[in-house]
Amino acid sequence: MKLYTYFRSSAAYRVRIALALKGIAYDAAPVHLLRNGGEQLGDAYRAINPAGLVPALEVDANVIGQSLAIIEYLEETYPQPPLLPATPMQRARVRALALTVAADTHPLGNLRVLKHLTGPLGVTEEVKLGWQQHWLRTGLSALESLLADDPRTGRYSHGDTPTLADCCLVPQVFGAQRFGIDMAPYPAIMRIHAACAELPAFQQAHPSQQPDAE
Amino acid sequence: MKLYTYFRSSAAYRVRIALALKGIAYDAAPVHLLRNGGEQLGDAYRAINPAGLVPALEVDANVIGQSLAIIEYLEETYPQPPLLPATPMQRARVRALALTVAADTHPLGNLRVLKHLTGPLGVTEEVKLGWQQHWLRTGLSALESLLADDPRTGRYSHGDTPTLADCCLVPQVFGAQRFGIDMAPYPAIMRIHAACAELPAFQQAHPSQQPDAE
Repeated sequence: MKLYTYFRSSAAYRVRIALALKGIAYDAAPVHLLRNGGEQLGDAYRAINPAGLVPALEVDANVIGQSLAIIEYLEETYPQPPLLPATPMQRARVRALALTVAADTHPLGNLRVLKHLTGPLGVTEEVKLGWQQHWLRTGLSALESLLADDPRTGRYSHGDTPTLADCCLVPQVFGAQRFGIDMAPYPAIMRIHAACAELPAFQQAHPSQQPDAE
Repeated sequence: MKLYTYFRSSAAYRVRIALALKGIAYDAAPVHLLRNGGEQLGDAYRAINPAGLVPALEVDANVIGQSLAIIEYLEETYPQPPLLPATPMQRARVRALALTVAADTHPLGNLRVLKHLTGPLGVTEEVKLGWQQHWLRTGLSALESLLADDPRTGRYSHGDTPTLADCCLVPQVFGAQRFGIDMAPYPAIMRIHAACAELPAFQQAHPSQQPDAE
């Protein structure tokens, strides 16, 4: 199993956490998102993942793109420990928390969007940072409400074992802190983040621990 | 079962297709995204879905947000007809296709983003339209490659029965056509779109057929 990854990619970081939680060995194939105009956009990588995005997981001759699709695949093929809870309604909650990060928050501040803002749209670095912080705060506020006001939240986002939701929460906090977001308004998120940070799997998956870390 | 919906919301449209394909009866509770500064942002709706986004599905006392989480829930609770294929690798492909729309394409052009561009960022209507078309074309190109170059694509996005991927593809085409995208570069998408459009479930779920259609 080979993971096309970039140490600081939030989406790749999600998958690394899931792999580590399940104890799955894999080869890391770094794709540098900034070098050579973005290696993910080059022909070599597009032959692997036509969408030109990281991460992708290669299993035998197949390639799976999209972090959440990869994690669902790992959940189905390596069920222990489970990253989704037992009942359909609980699973729906965990998936909705994950998508609050993966669909509503992260896509608005990722590298290609920021480059488009300062490139074709010609906005200043200050306006770009404001954009990024606005969508980070909007997404984090939504996630905080969904976590803080729900008795199903436990030590982690859902109950007392880590789930798919935590695989998404932790990288999003990493991204928010990188871009100077004050995390004080998000106590539930930060409490869960601290609980996750104690686990070896989350430590191993951290950007600073990757072979391509700079 | 009650669906909080808006006739033109791409994410609500996905869920309506899934409900119709599975033949599940539901009550439609329209939430007007433009009226009163956006009903989805008001206290009444936020008490239902704190994320302030449409759709949400109410089942007994529970509310599920996020279109893909809702459809996975429906798949688990109403398995027939299946909207995900049989093997984990096939399921991964369908989920990745769905997320190519739901995470990589749609979030960059939805209403709140467009309002932020013309509001706080102060861009012209022309620049806003250019933004929207850029991300639509980027997303559609990725989806086209994933569909056109893969023998697993059939009459529909994956094989010869409609899946979660088609629930996402059709509303994205509707959105792209609304904003003037020339669809000629996406023949695989348009062939699948035409196949879906023949099915009564896709016809019933269309924005024009909703009680809140304008």
